[in-house]
Amino acid sequence: MRFIDIIEKKKKGYELTEEEIKFFINGIMDGTIEDYQTSALLMAIYFRGMTLEETTILTKYMVNSGETLNLEDISKDITDKHSTGGVGDKITLIFLPLMAAAGIYTAKLSGRGLGHTGGTIDKLESIPNFRTDLSIEEFKSKVKEHKTAIAAQTLSLAPADGKLYALRDVTSTVDIIPLIASSVVSKKIASGANHIILDVKYGSGAFIKTAQEAQKLSEIMVEVGKRLGRNICAVISSMEEPLGRAVGNSVEIQEVIEFLKGNIQADLKEITYTLCDAAFKKSGKFSDINESYKYLDELISSGKALEKFKEIITSQGGDSSIINDYTKLPQAKIKYEIKSTIEGIITNVDALKIAKACKILGAGRDKKSDPIDYSAGIYLTKKSSEKVKIGDTIAVLYTNKDNLIKDAEEITKSAFKISNQMPKTKSLIYKIIN
Amino acid sequence: MRFIDIIEKKKKGYELTEEEIKFFINGIMDGTIEDYQTSALLMAIYFRGMTLEETTILTKYMVNSGETLNLEDISKDITDKHSTGGVGDKITLIFLPLMAAAGIYTAKLSGRGLGHTGGTIDKLESIPNFRTDLSIEEFKSKVKEHKTAIAAQTLSLAPADGKLYALRDVTSTVDIIPLIASSVVSKKIASGANHIILDVKYGSGAFIKTAQEAQKLSEIMVEVGKRLGRNICAVISSMEEPLGRAVGNSVEIQEVIEFLKGNIQADLKEITYTLCDAAFKKSGKFSDINESYKYLDELISSGKALEKFKEIITSQGGDSSIINDYTKLPQAKIKYEIKSTIEGIITNVDALKIAKACKILGAGRDKKSDPIDYSAGIYLTKKSSEKVKIGDTIAVLYTNKDNLIKDAEEITKSAFKISNQMPKTKSLIYKIIN
Repeated sequence: MRFIDIIEKKKKGYELTEEEIKFFINGIMDGTIEDYQTSALLMAIYFRGMTLEETTILTKYMVNSGETLNLEDISKDITDKHSTGGVGDKITLIFLPLMAAAGIYTAKLSGRGLGHTGGTIDKLESIPNFRTDLSIEEFKSKVKEHKTAIAAQTLSLAPADGKLYALRDVTSTVDIIPLIASSVVSKKIASGANHIILDVKYGSGAFIKTAQEAQKLSEIMVEVGKRLGRNICAVISSMEEPLGRAVGNSVEIQEVIEFLKGNIQADLKEITYTLCDAAFKKSGKFSDINESYKYLDELISSGKALEKFKEIITSQGGDSSIINDYTKLPQAKIKYEIKSTIEGIITNVDALKIAKACKILGAGRDKKSDPIDYSAGIYLTKKSSEKVKIGDTIAVLYTNKDNLIKDAEEITKSAFKISNQMPKTKSLIYKIIN
Repeated sequence: MRFIDIIEKKKKGYELTEEEIKFFINGIMDGTIEDYQTSALLMAIYFRGMTLEETTILTKYMVNSGETLNLEDISKDITDKHSTGGVGDKITLIFLPLMAAAGIYTAKLSGRGLGHTGGTIDKLESIPNFRTDLSIEEFKSKVKEHKTAIAAQTLSLAPADGKLYALRDVTSTVDIIPLIASSVVSKKIASGANHIILDVKYGSGAFIKTAQEAQKLSEIMVEVGKRLGRNICAVISSMEEPLGRAVGNSVEIQEVIEFLKGNIQADLKEITYTLCDAAFKKSGKFSDINESYKYLDELISSGKALEKFKEIITSQGGDSSIINDYTKLPQAKIKYEIKSTIEGIITNVDALKIAKACKILGAGRDKKSDPIDYSAGIYLTKKSSEKVKIGDTIAVLYTNKDNLIKDAEEITKSAFKISNQMPKTKSLIYKIIN
């Protein structure tokens, strides 16, 4: 078999066989296929696509390219949740204690975030002494004991995906739906859970811009997951505006704790509860959404979910006294209030602009080795459908970089769309793909 | 400027600017653009194409990427001829003496052939002591003295094209019309001639399979050549059957000499005369095809063209006594006659199959460093529209590899299509693009 014939075949629009896809993934792993040949194939895939069958086979061989986590000795039912990424997306940190409090096992391996704000691991690391560098044994024993644990991904899960992604990133071949699907699903399968809940976002603050694309991606991921024997679903939601009011790292931890204390932002609740309900359905706990919601409300009002969060923090070495004393979280030297210069009703707060402002303030990184300022971030005092008067604070910037405040302020201000008409309120959830 | 943005732009179907194309070619030359990025762009070009403007700019910067030959001190009118390649294509070796005998300057730099049979340079090198490794000074002084010379291309002409081609060859991106066009035209422009006659072939024995594609390629090459100030035209002809009867190296030299002696194969004459007429028109010598043909006939019947060929051989160190003694050319140990096993009228002799058989016999090479057997080849005793009886010799194989005779025989035999109906005769010339 010659790789050039595989490129030619895809270029001409034909479906690749299992043997050919296996040859491709093996060639990537053992270095017999050159990067310049791989990138030609990737670009051909951009134009010609991949069938569900090809995507499934690709995913399978990406899983097989490295280690896989075996969680069967803990339980035969383990739930995993994955978000395609959004601004202010702290849902994992609410989802895990809720699941654990409900008696559902979750085991969450998370990558370190690249982009405008930190990832879930970064957010957790803003809690003093919180350890995410768990060994496999520690990770598994904590899942067993507390029904949940969260660790930075150190295992070599689906390494073929890592190699492919590095090349896609520099050859303008990231935006290829079947490759995104096999990237996500291969990592989830290698992570060992059998129930997989995907949180797929679209809009300004997501890398997928339209609901239609998000649906296409979701349908492929769900179908591929099923074909590879997983109980999987995808919740598609809008990411035009940041989730909740806090965007950053320690500010988001604070918002998570407030949520678990019952001070709940409606948008955050809508997505979180929908994902929890999906997990309940997968595990057979509840089949009716009203029962799910009622139960989730109880887990919060009873303090059980907050208790679980405290338990997770303690179990992973963190200082759980932050729950009642936010000043123990990293604090920014500068707290800068942005005031409105006009009066009206907010119709949108652009998620991407807020993310960019956060990055300027120090909350994100470009390279995995870059440091992150856990205390940096933005708190949105005002969001959509809220009235504002001249002089009202619309957002607070947290940072240690006083020289960049003006740049961040300008972008933040431009994120706010203010009108004199109340926007139509609508559900953030677009569709659920089962 | 970032190259990834250029890839993205082409991927999305936009036209690249002069600055972007310049950045691309400079990046290829100074190594700042990685091969894996270039191949992604090449594949995007396969799907999105390039406009005439882009192709012209690309061609210009490929010319500028290396040395160019200046022939203006010899004459302000120099003619060059280029064939896109065919089986049994010995036309350059007839064209050059005819042009020189007609008083028209030609200066031919030729690459070494890769493929089933040798290139023009290989064919010439089958003449004992013939030198093609002329220095620029020698080459130019010979053109000045004899009105023509032919040398292996040693100058670094359009080196960006060489780099691009090497990558296209291993990434399944050879068959991209605008890139083929800029590859051909950039080399011709860098070679210094101002009149350019392109011999564009399509069919089984050519790399372009259809007349429509050949026309598209020709139109682009002619337009790009014109925009870059050249007097250029393209003659499009069919290459379903080998040109003439000889395919190989020394066997083709023999056929060239026979042609110049007046033993002329009709198909070879049709294409050669058409190209000569095109050159006469470009140089202003004749505007009427009948005058051209009459004059060419005279150049042959008078022996002037043969005399010129002898002069070229002598000028370049070769043994011109081969003209009257073919045994001085490399001789194959084995001459194997293939007999017809059926009776009928030949309707086609597949050019590609004959070329493949030739390769088996030793006449071609895969790598530039591979040796070539100058004596190997095939002589087609029978061609289209000729009757054949059982036991008639249809082809003679020349080789030194007796173990491969059977393989070559099988392919050669399968190339012959024999029917009981006379095929329609039609002109090989499809179109001339001016």
